[in-house]
Amino acid sequence: MTISSFMPPVRTLMGPGPSDVHPRILAALARPTLGHLDPLFVGMMDELKQLLKYAFNTENELTLPISAPGSAGMEACFVNLVEPGDKVVVCVNGVFGKRMCENVTRIGATAVTVDCAWGQPVDLAQVETVLEQHRDAKILAFVHAETSTGALSDAQALCALAKKYECLTIVDAVTSLGGVELRVDDWGIDAIYSGSQKCLSCTPGLSPVSFSDAAVAAIKARKHPVQSWFLDMNLILGYWGEGGKRAYHHTAPVNALYGLHESLVMLQEEGLENAWQRHAAMHASLAAGLEALGVHFVVDAGSRLPQLNSVYIPDGVDDAKVRQYLLAEHNLEIGAGLGDFAGKVWRIGLMGYSARSENITLLLTALAEAMTQQGYVCSAEDALAAAIK
Amino acid sequence: MTISSFMPPVRTLMGPGPSDVHPRILAALARPTLGHLDPLFVGMMDELKQLLKYAFNTENELTLPISAPGSAGMEACFVNLVEPGDKVVVCVNGVFGKRMCENVTRIGATAVTVDCAWGQPVDLAQVETVLEQHRDAKILAFVHAETSTGALSDAQALCALAKKYECLTIVDAVTSLGGVELRVDDWGIDAIYSGSQKCLSCTPGLSPVSFSDAAVAAIKARKHPVQSWFLDMNLILGYWGEGGKRAYHHTAPVNALYGLHESLVMLQEEGLENAWQRHAAMHASLAAGLEALGVHFVVDAGSRLPQLNSVYIPDGVDDAKVRQYLLAEHNLEIGAGLGDFAGKVWRIGLMGYSARSENITLLLTALAEAMTQQGYVCSAEDALAAAIK
Repeated sequence: MTISSFMPPVRTLMGPGPSDVHPRILAALARPTLGHLDPLFVGMMDELKQLLKYAFNTENELTLPISAPGSAGMEACFVNLVEPGDKVVVCVNGVFGKRMCENVTRIGATAVTVDCAWGQPVDLAQVETVLEQHRDAKILAFVHAETSTGALSDAQALCALAKKYECLTIVDAVTSLGGVELRVDDWGIDAIYSGSQKCLSCTPGLSPVSFSDAAVAAIKARKHPVQSWFLDMNLILGYWGEGGKRAYHHTAPVNALYGLHESLVMLQEEGLENAWQRHAAMHASLAAGLEALGVHFVVDAGSRLPQLNSVYIPDGVDDAKVRQYLLAEHNLEIGAGLGDFAGKVWRIGLMGYSARSENITLLLTALAEAMTQQGYVCSAEDALAAAIK
Repeated sequence: MTISSFMPPVRTLMGPGPSDVHPRILAALARPTLGHLDPLFVGMMDELKQLLKYAFNTENELTLPISAPGSAGMEACFVNLVEPGDKVVVCVNGVFGKRMCENVTRIGATAVTVDCAWGQPVDLAQVETVLEQHRDAKILAFVHAETSTGALSDAQALCALAKKYECLTIVDAVTSLGGVELRVDDWGIDAIYSGSQKCLSCTPGLSPVSFSDAAVAAIKARKHPVQSWFLDMNLILGYWGEGGKRAYHHTAPVNALYGLHESLVMLQEEGLENAWQRHAAMHASLAAGLEALGVHFVVDAGSRLPQLNSVYIPDGVDDAKVRQYLLAEHNLEIGAGLGDFAGKVWRIGLMGYSARSENITLLLTALAEAMTQQGYVCSAEDALAAAIK
């Protein structure tokens, strides 16, 4: 066995994440490693918290990145807020709602599901009916932007419903943060988690989270210890807390945090609302181009995620062959369908640094070429003309 | 609020980890991000598994990096092998043995502790007495290299004891992997976890783990689901398993894995046994230099970790002032004492890329200077002369 250094090619990442990582962020990852208790590193952590508060639109003190991917951020929210025996209403309109249920049951709590159609936003009336039937529910959990389908749910209205029925909220913002409007404080979200590798355009591996005062109070009032030592927010707070003694908990992923810091500095430079607008504008361009190719959207225009475009694979076009062609001939990655959508749908990401016109031009050109090879009739020129409009 | 890019200085890291990261590894972190299901990335994952098997001296199929720091690797071993109601014998001779107990109790299992003196290896006779008293114990857990004290325990003998009493073993190798002899298969270790940021000299954030066939069988025979979704090895195996369908579980920390791959390629180039010998030789040099400064070791020579040197702070020398001076004047980090050793002990790391003679020269020179400033009488020249021997 002799294994050499790994030299990856440069891909264009237009799948469901990771998205294209800006060269500034890659450069940040390679900066000299500091100790995780170094005063300069601790200062960087304070900036990171400020930047995350900006991105989440929150003043929540307990706002920080979990040292693991979005799935661990999900687990952090559930294991800290849910206790054995609790009842949690979980809205399921895709893969990630289902994963939330897994988290609930592994705590020894009960998940009451609100099953909604894939590709649709969570249905408010259905949720209210279930909350009405389960007055003892403690938490309402839902996915803001379903990465498996491309549907955006009305987080503001869902949080208002939760408050009406005296539930705390747990919100999955893995794909929404930085890509669409998201206002943690104004909407009254209690616990939220995201991922570094979607609209923040950082490398994968970190999960920003934020907890409201009500969530923190619930964590402090727990009857059972948090089942995870690694994800226990009481302990994590000892390391990340303001003015605290920076008690050692675990060794922070120093260089990965440099990358997240840089990605958030770039978000601040662009302006959060400008980033939302850029995603919307790029989506409009891509959508016009795809429709010109005869490729149609899974999700209705009113609840479509600009950053994740789920489209039906046209009849007679081979899913795997197209994706392999794009990768082999154009170094271009798009996403396959997940769960119920496997083999039927492509997921085309326009997240963060991927949401730019060069990528749209490449995608439309390459996709038209790949489909034409399979006898599908379409015109890249028409698509590009439509996209420019 | 306007926050700028973070530009860390270049430090020399001689604390308990993170250790100095080789420029080749920093460069690897900045390579272009691939999708986590990209065939080229999957190929890199297969190499990573092979390289980890080499580092652990194992043929265990279930050998891979957990996508989170060493504490999560610890939790992965415990939540997969321990079920509610189980009895686990935990050897405690420092901070990390205590943390193991926390993991056991949060599962709803019972931890029977073998309390040993800090700075000493785990006492075999004590362990046998406890195993004799608790014939229903399912697992023996211990720390191979206690990062909080610098003591090395006899993992081979402890595993033999465990087998005699029909226990599985969980071994903390966070600080030992790559720094001292470690033979997972020959010694009969069932579950082991390590960290990327110690003797592998990679950045922090990943935890290599390995499970024996007996451990895998125990995981498959569980009566209760694993309480953590993120750390459930049954699910993780679906993504990392050979010849499997590479089922999506969570998004792998792509660039961090490039770094780990590069660090293991470098370990393979040097040769594992050569790396152990380098750590031993550098330790001998440092130890001679420190003794010449009148700085004495906490741990007896026979069970000292070469890669983590715990030494008593000489009388009249201020702990914090010395560490601040080293950092401010020499960009040199050493570690403070942890737990019972806070304020009494320094921890000087010689891990991975930090274990080289330039670092020893810097440490001895800078430490002599810092202590002299406080009226302590010592000679850097004598220390350097002793170190060269």
